[in-house]
Amino acid sequence: MNVPVNFDKLEVGYDIPAVPGMAEADIQTPCLILDLDALERNIKKMGDYAKAHGMRHRVHGKMHKSVDVAKLQEKLGGAIGVCCQKVSEAEVFVRGGIKDVLVSNQVRDPKKIDRLAQLPKLGSSIIVCVDDLSNVAELSAAAQKHGTELGVFVEIDCGAGRCGVTTSQDVVAIARAVEASPGLKFRGIQAYQGAMQHMDKYEDRKAKLDIAIGMVKDAVQALKSVGLEPELVSGGGTGSYYFESTSGVFNELQCGSYAFMDADYGRILDKDGKRIDQGEWENALFILTQVMSHAKADKAIVDAGLKAQSVDSGLPVVYGRSDVKYIKCSDEHGVVEDPKGVLKVGEKLRLVPGHCDPTANVHDWYVGVRNGKVEVVWPVSARGKAY
Amino acid sequence: MNVPVNFDKLEVGYDIPAVPGMAEADIQTPCLILDLDALERNIKKMGDYAKAHGMRHRVHGKMHKSVDVAKLQEKLGGAIGVCCQKVSEAEVFVRGGIKDVLVSNQVRDPKKIDRLAQLPKLGSSIIVCVDDLSNVAELSAAAQKHGTELGVFVEIDCGAGRCGVTTSQDVVAIARAVEASPGLKFRGIQAYQGAMQHMDKYEDRKAKLDIAIGMVKDAVQALKSVGLEPELVSGGGTGSYYFESTSGVFNELQCGSYAFMDADYGRILDKDGKRIDQGEWENALFILTQVMSHAKADKAIVDAGLKAQSVDSGLPVVYGRSDVKYIKCSDEHGVVEDPKGVLKVGEKLRLVPGHCDPTANVHDWYVGVRNGKVEVVWPVSARGKAY
Repeated sequence: MNVPVNFDKLEVGYDIPAVPGMAEADIQTPCLILDLDALERNIKKMGDYAKAHGMRHRVHGKMHKSVDVAKLQEKLGGAIGVCCQKVSEAEVFVRGGIKDVLVSNQVRDPKKIDRLAQLPKLGSSIIVCVDDLSNVAELSAAAQKHGTELGVFVEIDCGAGRCGVTTSQDVVAIARAVEASPGLKFRGIQAYQGAMQHMDKYEDRKAKLDIAIGMVKDAVQALKSVGLEPELVSGGGTGSYYFESTSGVFNELQCGSYAFMDADYGRILDKDGKRIDQGEWENALFILTQVMSHAKADKAIVDAGLKAQSVDSGLPVVYGRSDVKYIKCSDEHGVVEDPKGVLKVGEKLRLVPGHCDPTANVHDWYVGVRNGKVEVVWPVSARGKAY
Repeated sequence: MNVPVNFDKLEVGYDIPAVPGMAEADIQTPCLILDLDALERNIKKMGDYAKAHGMRHRVHGKMHKSVDVAKLQEKLGGAIGVCCQKVSEAEVFVRGGIKDVLVSNQVRDPKKIDRLAQLPKLGSSIIVCVDDLSNVAELSAAAQKHGTELGVFVEIDCGAGRCGVTTSQDVVAIARAVEASPGLKFRGIQAYQGAMQHMDKYEDRKAKLDIAIGMVKDAVQALKSVGLEPELVSGGGTGSYYFESTSGVFNELQCGSYAFMDADYGRILDKDGKRIDQGEWENALFILTQVMSHAKADKAIVDAGLKAQSVDSGLPVVYGRSDVKYIKCSDEHGVVEDPKGVLKVGEKLRLVPGHCDPTANVHDWYVGVRNGKVEVVWPVSARGKAY
């Protein structure tokens, strides 16, 4: 529900965890906070990298689901637009003013196709992924019905084992069908290897990406041979962007997590064997939590449990502390091991979430902080937009 | 954000997954659906049980976070009110018209205590849990400031290892302090054993509850000996309510999951060794999902991933199907093993979520269905209310 925000009428606590201008110490927990300095540095760094390597950067909006963060990525990081995974997310980004939106996923439900085909009327360029010939006619009919044009990426499954075709023959067949279909335009290839991004070792990730790049080069060659050279070849994530951008075949990146970082991504190692959250990217996203009970001497109970985060990729890590450890998570509670009893009731801790994407999706707000003050409170604009 | 819902102005898909009156087949996925017949049968059954055993039933509102479901539990199940875990949830239930609300948790932040102390002004009876003497003065000061009365339960940690005191001496000390504090009233004991609810075997659960009941009986005896007999002794969940209600010491239940059921709870066994989702309770809550890609012959990709559910207690189970299996979950995708290739793109499946509470918390709406039609669309009123 995207309602216009009037901070004067909202009550801290019931509707929102903070208002701009308040001290960081007064923020209500649990909530998401963004270290704005770290966020801006991450965004600039990736933007500079993409520019230096001649890559377009289509930032992954499904990670943060925030129009405000996407606009910051356009402003500071030269992002050309966003990708996202759902039509309802695309609707939010288009209505929020993002002009180039890729739904990096299949859209098959008739009602969703109809909604997607209307989006270009709002002034944005829309691209969607296809991995099945029968989807081409559905998209074409909807675009014609609404008098719009939908761009199409043919999706290659280059190792993730989800959507996407696996042969260059299929790529060519779909691209040809797209080019022959009124209302559609073949824009290029989607090739995101999602399954290798979190592999610890750089060399293991490289081996997987080498296979992916080989598949993509083969497909591009096959397309060229029938006169359908792709305008865009898009893919790459926080654990792989250096491979795509030096491949000679990709020309568009789709990184997301680099902007926020999380505990699971942070553990992967760079080329030199160093964790990527210790140099390459900074932790910018935290769950702010508060100690609410310390009835046992060696355990503090904090107020961030399963409803403040997703633990699919492991428990959160207490930021900047080696003396205490988040060891258990239930619906509304976290158990923090505190062997020396150093934590006090009321004390606040920053948690680095295990996995940023689904953690952002349980919160309504990002509280942006700088120098101990709340500077902005941004809605998680596309929160819950899964359909 | 609780905005008044005007279904005529909402667009299916962007704002809501369904509108009342539409065919079940047209519901946009992924979303939560409630089988209203099953829900009503579960609610009536537990209500009848509580009545037959002379127990008050304070339903756990934190499970569903829905004012509409809570009101159905009052109407059909004789519920006397709700418990919930956060002040922001209590605010939603009080504003929604629930007259007896227990925050079955500690409230320690000054701003939250201030908000809590204002709630009785809206016409509801409020009770809060305490496990620390220093919290008593904080609550008393806030209640006096607002001219209200807060009820207090002393929380006993009877095995869950989270909040709560562990000795009868501490229970008595806190109860005495409460009774001596203006603005507060000692109402009884909170003793919920959360750690045993999901143990598979009935006898294992019973052994844990026997210990809990022993602690509670000891505390009640100690309170009686100083003239502070507790009016209410509250606890019990879907995996234990028969123990509390025949203990002779508890007089209030706090069950939640029985109304919806989930895959993890469903696996526990009743006294006769039968799964509780095969007789005791029916699955009433489902994630409705749709096949969006079937580019590999033996795998269907569905549109419900980590942003449509919590997998902390395991993957969802495809309801009523033994030929296909949900085997993998990423942010926006689920991989369904389909060895015989029986699923078609566009086909919809009902998933029983692994864990209902945090799954409900990622959705904005419950779509209530009966006889193939959408009958109601209820907001998850307290979704995201974690602070």
